[in-house]
Amino acid sequence: MAKKLRIGVIGAGRIGKLHAANLVNSVPDAEVVAISDIFEESAKKVAAELGIPQVCKDYKDILKNPDIDAVFICSSTDTHSPISVEAAKAGKHIFCEKPIDHDLAKIKQVLAAVKKSNVKYQVGFNRRFDRNFKHVADCVKKGDLGKVEIVKVCSRDPEAPPVSYVKVSGGIFLDMTIHDFDMVRYLTGSEVTEVSAIGTCLVDPKIGKAGDVDTAIITMRFKNGALGVIDNCRATSYGYDQRIEVFGSKGMMTADNETANNTKFYGEGGVMSEKPLYFFLERYNDAYIQEEKDFVEACLENKDTVVNANDGLAPVLIGLAAAESCKKGGIPVKVKL
Amino acid sequence: MAKKLRIGVIGAGRIGKLHAANLVNSVPDAEVVAISDIFEESAKKVAAELGIPQVCKDYKDILKNPDIDAVFICSSTDTHSPISVEAAKAGKHIFCEKPIDHDLAKIKQVLAAVKKSNVKYQVGFNRRFDRNFKHVADCVKKGDLGKVEIVKVCSRDPEAPPVSYVKVSGGIFLDMTIHDFDMVRYLTGSEVTEVSAIGTCLVDPKIGKAGDVDTAIITMRFKNGALGVIDNCRATSYGYDQRIEVFGSKGMMTADNETANNTKFYGEGGVMSEKPLYFFLERYNDAYIQEEKDFVEACLENKDTVVNANDGLAPVLIGLAAAESCKKGGIPVKVKL
Amino acid sequence: MAKKLRIGVIGAGRIGKLHAANLVNSVPDAEVVAISDIFEESAKKVAAELGIPQVCKDYKDILKNPDIDAVFICSSTDTHSPISVEAAKAGKHIFCEKPIDHDLAKIKQVLAAVKKSNVKYQVGFNRRFDRNFKHVADCVKKGDLGKVEIVKVCSRDPEAPPVSYVKVSGGIFLDMTIHDFDMVRYLTGSEVTEVSAIGTCLVDPKIGKAGDVDTAIITMRFKNGALGVIDNCRATSYGYDQRIEVFGSKGMMTADNETANNTKFYGEGGVMSEKPLYFFLERYNDAYIQEEKDFVEACLENKDTVVNANDGLAPVLIGLAAAESCKKGGIPVKVKL
Amino acid sequence: MAKKLRIGVIGAGRIGKLHAANLVNSVPDAEVVAISDIFEESAKKVAAELGIPQVCKDYKDILKNPDIDAVFICSSTDTHSPISVEAAKAGKHIFCEKPIDHDLAKIKQVLAAVKKSNVKYQVGFNRRFDRNFKHVADCVKKGDLGKVEIVKVCSRDPEAPPVSYVKVSGGIFLDMTIHDFDMVRYLTGSEVTEVSAIGTCLVDPKIGKAGDVDTAIITMRFKNGALGVIDNCRATSYGYDQRIEVFGSKGMMTADNETANNTKFYGEGGVMSEKPLYFFLERYNDAYIQEEKDFVEACLENKDTVVNANDGLAPVLIGLAAAESCKKGGIPVKVKL
Repeated sequence: MAKKLRIGVIGAGRIGKLHAANLVNSVPDAEVVAISDIFEESAKKVAAELGIPQVCKDYKDILKNPDIDAVFICSSTDTHSPISVEAAKAGKHIFCEKPIDHDLAKIKQVLAAVKKSNVKYQVGFNRRFDRNFKHVADCVKKGDLGKVEIVKVCSRDPEAPPVSYVKVSGGIFLDMTIHDFDMVRYLTGSEVTEVSAIGTCLVDPKIGKAGDVDTAIITMRFKNGALGVIDNCRATSYGYDQRIEVFGSKGMMTADNETANNTKFYGEGGVMSEKPLYFFLERYNDAYIQEEKDFVEACLENKDTVVNANDGLAPVLIGLAAAESCKKGGIPVKVKL
Repeated sequence: MAKKLRIGVIGAGRIGKLHAANLVNSVPDAEVVAISDIFEESAKKVAAELGIPQVCKDYKDILKNPDIDAVFICSSTDTHSPISVEAAKAGKHIFCEKPIDHDLAKIKQVLAAVKKSNVKYQVGFNRRFDRNFKHVADCVKKGDLGKVEIVKVCSRDPEAPPVSYVKVSGGIFLDMTIHDFDMVRYLTGSEVTEVSAIGTCLVDPKIGKAGDVDTAIITMRFKNGALGVIDNCRATSYGYDQRIEVFGSKGMMTADNETANNTKFYGEGGVMSEKPLYFFLERYNDAYIQEEKDFVEACLENKDTVVNANDGLAPVLIGLAAAESCKKGGIPVKVKL
Repeated sequence: MAKKLRIGVIGAGRIGKLHAANLVNSVPDAEVVAISDIFEESAKKVAAELGIPQVCKDYKDILKNPDIDAVFICSSTDTHSPISVEAAKAGKHIFCEKPIDHDLAKIKQVLAAVKKSNVKYQVGFNRRFDRNFKHVADCVKKGDLGKVEIVKVCSRDPEAPPVSYVKVSGGIFLDMTIHDFDMVRYLTGSEVTEVSAIGTCLVDPKIGKAGDVDTAIITMRFKNGALGVIDNCRATSYGYDQRIEVFGSKGMMTADNETANNTKFYGEGGVMSEKPLYFFLERYNDAYIQEEKDFVEACLENKDTVVNANDGLAPVLIGLAAAESCKKGGIPVKVKL
Repeated sequence: MAKKLRIGVIGAGRIGKLHAANLVNSVPDAEVVAISDIFEESAKKVAAELGIPQVCKDYKDILKNPDIDAVFICSSTDTHSPISVEAAKAGKHIFCEKPIDHDLAKIKQVLAAVKKSNVKYQVGFNRRFDRNFKHVADCVKKGDLGKVEIVKVCSRDPEAPPVSYVKVSGGIFLDMTIHDFDMVRYLTGSEVTEVSAIGTCLVDPKIGKAGDVDTAIITMRFKNGALGVIDNCRATSYGYDQRIEVFGSKGMMTADNETANNTKFYGEGGVMSEKPLYFFLERYNDAYIQEEKDFVEACLENKDTVVNANDGLAPVLIGLAAAESCKKGGIPVKVKL
């Protein structure tokens, strides 16, 4: 049997459990050796279900374990950057959930630590691994669309989060649009240089009172001359809406939502087909598995990760610029690359 | 102004009125000179609406009129063949609604008369002029699909006709499937050599009592080796269903129904789009105009018509074989070409 | 026969000829009595083809003709507003091609003249009559989508116009986007209060040298709280791209491009379907006929027109604001309603 | 941890390996304890890859093992029925790949043995577990379509098998159409009473020389009065084509092929989307996992299997009737239920 990557999962909440289960069930080259959580009971429960041998309360026990090659950082957002730095120092390869941090200085510390210790670093921008979006990005890269002129992302959540979450989320641009900022960089292969954002509160007035918006349109200019636009909403009546379009000099390409099945019902009232999958875990199920496989492969075969630490920084820079633009009523703001 | 084709319309019922209106409004090279109907009032009403100068009760007045180049035979089915023969003798070009007749001897008299007088003859198989079906037939002819292996037609009416109509219709295979028999000949460019049909009565028991079926599946063998299948039903809950598929060695091609618009509504209950157009007059509106234009052009420029008298005979032969097969419980019956 | 609307067409260029032909062939309640053009030969040619009895060089002859009820103003853009004023004074109902003018003062003179003489006035925003877009607008109006939150228009021309045209066009926002500004007003039933535009020159550098952009993204705020976005490009590789999307609290609705047919070819290389229709005359053929029918009906039955003089003013105001925003690098500009 | 079902896999060829890998990686409630193959090396290789503890040459060692609850019979077709009988006598639950046998007497022995020993028996008709087809079947069962009138299955393989395989396959109707016979029973919830088949050899003349056909259309009558049709071909130019349609008194439902992604490319040549997945292992990957999960659950929770031994018998009966009909030129043949 080939060498497996021995992994410690830090954090046993929703996303930690998801990664642990996928690594155990669907990534043959991975071996989950340990899982930690400050609520040790959560970690114990996940370990029992998945047959993970070691459980600990303190993630430092994972970092100290010489038997572990790599960590998945799935703890709360504020711990992503410090644990990343420590893990890098401990010589572990790192898969870190998005965002690395909302604070630029802290992200830069992570970049420095990763560079110094020469470990693999992958940020959890899972949508790059969606088969539809990846195919579009691949075709753009191959030149099938010619010179990219306009990139469009439509990204709408099925249901608004509770206001308690909104308050600590960093705002819509750093919490939700950050995925879309990663997507436009991925699709165009170019950097965003300037951003304008208009936003409003149409879904839940409590979100507005908390100082955030729930509906927004963001336009961008790219280094390669292209223009871009993202539209966001925190809630829809019809599920999780995630579509993209790239328009180039030689052609245009679209990717649509995924549905539970492709049946059509023809009846008196019209023709009915399935609405988009409701939840991100369903929609991006295969994408999560693919990002885990890619990370494991990058570690085992010493390849570059598809989403590196720099790719974790750029969307935060764009998000901060978008937040500033929106606060100032939509004036364009340069991105401080 | 170029020479126009001077036309007399025989029959001012639903289909006669349709052709007259299209010729007046949408076929610039046609001039409707006269219209006749045994119910003269009907002809008068249509003439007044459309500005047709002459009205008569007896179609013979149209045939005698030296000012008329061509006739549209839109009278009752039993009069199609005798009027065709007379019109041919009178030297008029002839557009005849389908079917020419249900009686082979009478059809052959028409063929002979047409051949002798050397007039243009076109049968009203309007579906050949549907932009979707025509595009498929054109691609087959060009060889895009390679050798044709399977041809499929799905043809279902929105609503069953009254039993009074069913009784004089000649049966489902000569009344309804006849269009589909024309379509498979058109799509494959080959003749049907053998046919099997199974039928049943699921829509309206009165149709069964009248000795007919309302739901049927017909399979065919073609001279070029291909196989074919048609499925029919006299009623649907969702409109007029007319789809085709041609499967060949190099590719497969489908044509779908037309709808009132292409919008999609995404809501809680799913994604809703328009059902097929309900009525054959809506669905084939443009096809009717195109067949009239083609006929007028064939007459004015002395070209072959796209659906000639032979094309009127073949589907009747196939229909008679299908009716025999169905009556005998589905045994295959040779088509007497 | 019912009373017909007697019409004089002013201008026998591409769009004048289009309207004249449609009115003659497809609008039974219209009667084209006269056609004028400063190049009298053009008018004569069209008149001969369509059987229009009177031809003149000077449109004033049409305005003076007491036999004429209504005019179609299809002359060059700079003459739209003065002829509109004169025609209103002459008591003629007016169909005026877009735009009324680029100069606000002149548009307001038209509004005043129309109000005073109490004639019908319709501006040629033909896309409102497209069956797909109209269905979406109707569903929004009925409340099927709930409260509108985001409206999106994608509008791209198949081919860039010559630079000579660009120079006198008033710029992309007044020449091309003006249709989309009308569309967002139509779809939302609300006014644009603020607009931001970013633009660039990616299609043809000569357009940039002429001081215009050929690729642009425009965001908008609406009086009812909704947000909107339009993306434009002067050229595509795949035809005329015109799509819309309205996202509301209860549902989302899209309308797609029209194609020459709905066939699909399945072959080794994938599944191929038709690209969007290439030319606006093909795409909006039925929409043109519908707008003419509606105008004729409004005149004959003394109803309000669907696109009135005010609807001619608003998109110009938005276009001027967009042009200003674009020139200033994308800062938001209020629309001076 | 809950009790797992301990499974022995008999046969380590393509399909045995597939089931073993799925059971290990994707069915948490299953534990693959042993694998056997007459080529012991094959079994050893699969066992090593998947971490299966026991390997044996003789399947009888699996049947004797008291530690094993259930077997997956994935050996060559001629061994399905004898091993099924032995396994039933040994008290093992049985998952048996299709077909149970081509010989009716042998199938009936299996039915008797299964009945006597009261073990679970599931036949590998994996397509019932395809999310699209299952959704249609569920909607039919719920009554959404009303009374079923017509059922249609289109089933075409991407590539013809070698003639050596064709010779021992039992013929197209027992080898290929057998899946479709299962599908029509599943979709309608009714039994086939009569079948007609026409076939021909268009793909590979060697198949014809071997006494088989490679292209066929089969029509059916059902106990509930519905009609049905299947069309088959051994090869396409565009992948694995598997579509269904059910037409009922209240509505019609279709299920389409699956594709690698849902992107569309708009270019000069048209709009291109992905063709159907090429290979049955890709197309039905999720369906295989679902059938395994359902079998494991049926065994552990003592439920009925979705495809029982009777469901293994019926398609063979239909297939034999179809083969007879085809040989006799298409005359209808009763199914001996």
